[in-house]
Amino acid sequence: MLPFTVTHSDRDSAARVAELATPHGTVHTPAFMPVGTAGTVKGMAGWELERLAPEMVLANTYHLLLRPGVEKIEEMGGIHRLMAWPGPILTDSGGYQVFSLAARRRLDDDGVTFHSHLDGSVHRLTPENVVETQSRYGVDVAMVLDECLPYPVELGSARESVSRSIAWARRGLDRAERLREASDGWRGGVFAIQQGSVDEDLRRQCSEELIGHDFDGFAIGGLAVGEPSAVLHEAVAMAAPMLPASKPRYLMGVGYPEDLVHAVACGVDLFDCVLPTRSARTGKIFTSTGEINIKNARFADDLRPLDEACGCPTCASYSRAALRHLYVAREVTSVVLLTVHNLTFFLGLMRGAREAIMAGHYGRFRQRIDGIRNQLPRSQGSVTTAR
Amino acid sequence: MLPFTVTHSDRDSAARVAELATPHGTVHTPAFMPVGTAGTVKGMAGWELERLAPEMVLANTYHLLLRPGVEKIEEMGGIHRLMAWPGPILTDSGGYQVFSLAARRRLDDDGVTFHSHLDGSVHRLTPENVVETQSRYGVDVAMVLDECLPYPVELGSARESVSRSIAWARRGLDRAERLREASDGWRGGVFAIQQGSVDEDLRRQCSEELIGHDFDGFAIGGLAVGEPSAVLHEAVAMAAPMLPASKPRYLMGVGYPEDLVHAVACGVDLFDCVLPTRSARTGKIFTSTGEINIKNARFADDLRPLDEACGCPTCASYSRAALRHLYVAREVTSVVLLTVHNLTFFLGLMRGAREAIMAGHYGRFRQRIDGIRNQLPRSQGSVTTAR
Repeated sequence: MLPFTVTHSDRDSAARVAELATPHGTVHTPAFMPVGTAGTVKGMAGWELERLAPEMVLANTYHLLLRPGVEKIEEMGGIHRLMAWPGPILTDSGGYQVFSLAARRRLDDDGVTFHSHLDGSVHRLTPENVVETQSRYGVDVAMVLDECLPYPVELGSARESVSRSIAWARRGLDRAERLREASDGWRGGVFAIQQGSVDEDLRRQCSEELIGHDFDGFAIGGLAVGEPSAVLHEAVAMAAPMLPASKPRYLMGVGYPEDLVHAVACGVDLFDCVLPTRSARTGKIFTSTGEINIKNARFADDLRPLDEACGCPTCASYSRAALRHLYVAREVTSVVLLTVHNLTFFLGLMRGAREAIMAGHYGRFRQRIDGIRNQLPRSQGSVTTAR
Repeated sequence: MLPFTVTHSDRDSAARVAELATPHGTVHTPAFMPVGTAGTVKGMAGWELERLAPEMVLANTYHLLLRPGVEKIEEMGGIHRLMAWPGPILTDSGGYQVFSLAARRRLDDDGVTFHSHLDGSVHRLTPENVVETQSRYGVDVAMVLDECLPYPVELGSARESVSRSIAWARRGLDRAERLREASDGWRGGVFAIQQGSVDEDLRRQCSEELIGHDFDGFAIGGLAVGEPSAVLHEAVAMAAPMLPASKPRYLMGVGYPEDLVHAVACGVDLFDCVLPTRSARTGKIFTSTGEINIKNARFADDLRPLDEACGCPTCASYSRAALRHLYVAREVTSVVLLTVHNLTFFLGLMRGAREAIMAGHYGRFRQRIDGIRNQLPRSQGSVTTAR
């Protein structure tokens, strides 16, 4: 089991500061995990990522399974060596990508068979082998196989799917326990995933079936799949308290700054999202005064840094005008510079949340973050942010 | 004038160690300049480039003229701000790119009119305005406008072209001298370019016409344009001694490690080439035991660093197996990691040359470098390496 200790709790909300001990170090929560899909956070050399000092990094079991494959990762000495990142790593189970990326797939009660989106080769995920694969990667936290429901979904099929996800979670945990019994075995933790779409009864039933088992943490899955922002916020407020306060809570695939600070207030501890990294590649920049798109012609003469309140090396040495030029010229350097900035923003947001909770003014902190968004029209109506 | 001081001379060759003082710092030669075509060395954040500590960096007048344009660069506070690179910068004159990239061009004795390869817009380069443009960028060394001859070339047309390049060089210098007269004016240097294809008489005539004028240095132009390696080496050996020993000699657009160590032995001080950076983007890696291509399937299980003798951060933290995976997965991170390594190799090669000259064993150093190449079949018969 991964020790989890809540060190500070907010008086006015469920927000808390905690420490999750993992084989590769302590994760201070609330924490945002940058996404390193195929074994690297896009554009970030390992040493650059270390300098940004994320608490934990996420990688995708599905992508790494197809390429370079679990045997190769084992030969390399594990996923930490592949990523050149010595800190904690969490991998998803691969289920989400099978449903969103695989060319063809066939689901049965025992798992899912799919064709690789890269070369059409056939693969099979089972509740047991996804946990085993993650243990062979050597991750700090493995996620169980689940079925991620679309939004909206018919209640009947949601009920069936949730039962399957519950059964899969238990089978995954059983396998993890056997793997951890070996004296030189894997030492990572396993998180279960609560599903149930936006239905309160289904979410409660799912939680109750899962929380009796020795999982190291619990994720809220099946959100950020296309539902409007208000629906997401309501669902998080409903779903998070169903999960035990004594274990880390992880909201998968979310999201915008105001989504994060809302979820933290609901008691969520962990997040991952491609938003800062993917946005960097389309020129969308997060700042303390709102979002900008560096492509915009008005920045061609703007000699200010991306964010005057930011301490990242990009803001220390490049003007908006220079960054716009590098973006428009499609320079690879632009991906590096904008990713460093956006990740600094998201990691700083979570550091700010931790400090605010410890200092007893999380409510004020959250108001300030919400205020940034309110200054600007929301660039998209939904929070859909593919993992 | 930029002070140039030869501090060590080789006994057995024309190789020398020298210092070129520029407004942004001292360039220790022999030196290799990484190429930052459009205002960045591709994939290198300014702070990353600073860590690699090149003596001087090259940027392309033509690319920067088209985008973002000279006014924008002036507004930004100059090319050093755009590039976030505080050290010495040399720009080419743009002539080479006009002949290799522009959509259409028309040459007359007064300059060249061309259509942008980006948007077809019409621009004109004259001997005067290319120097003025570079001074407005705020470069440390500006190159005069020249006409770069193809290889092979008919002697009659070469003769005419060389006369034009000589006239242009003088006109460029006149303009530079006027620009430098202003008390708050530009303080950069101007290099002339020796042309003449591989014809000894033409190269000598060109040199004699140029060296009587107060240029800060002299370049050998018109090589590395498709001629075989042996022809290049012979041409450098013939051309370099025609240029004054009291000024820096710069061999444009060259080249492979053995081309560099040969040219150094001929008394050349400065080099630029896209080879290390462009090769990184195609997976071609320079090492102390020869070139490899990281794409090769045999590296999928290779747990060694790219080069066991290399001290770069890529070699410190990534195996060939990991780098092959990132390359095959087309990760932007791979460009960063491989560029850091290849540049480290080329900068280290020049540092090695300086140390060997100072220690009095340059001949042995050169033999060692030539030996690397001799272990391997040359991957291409010609040294063509477009600037």
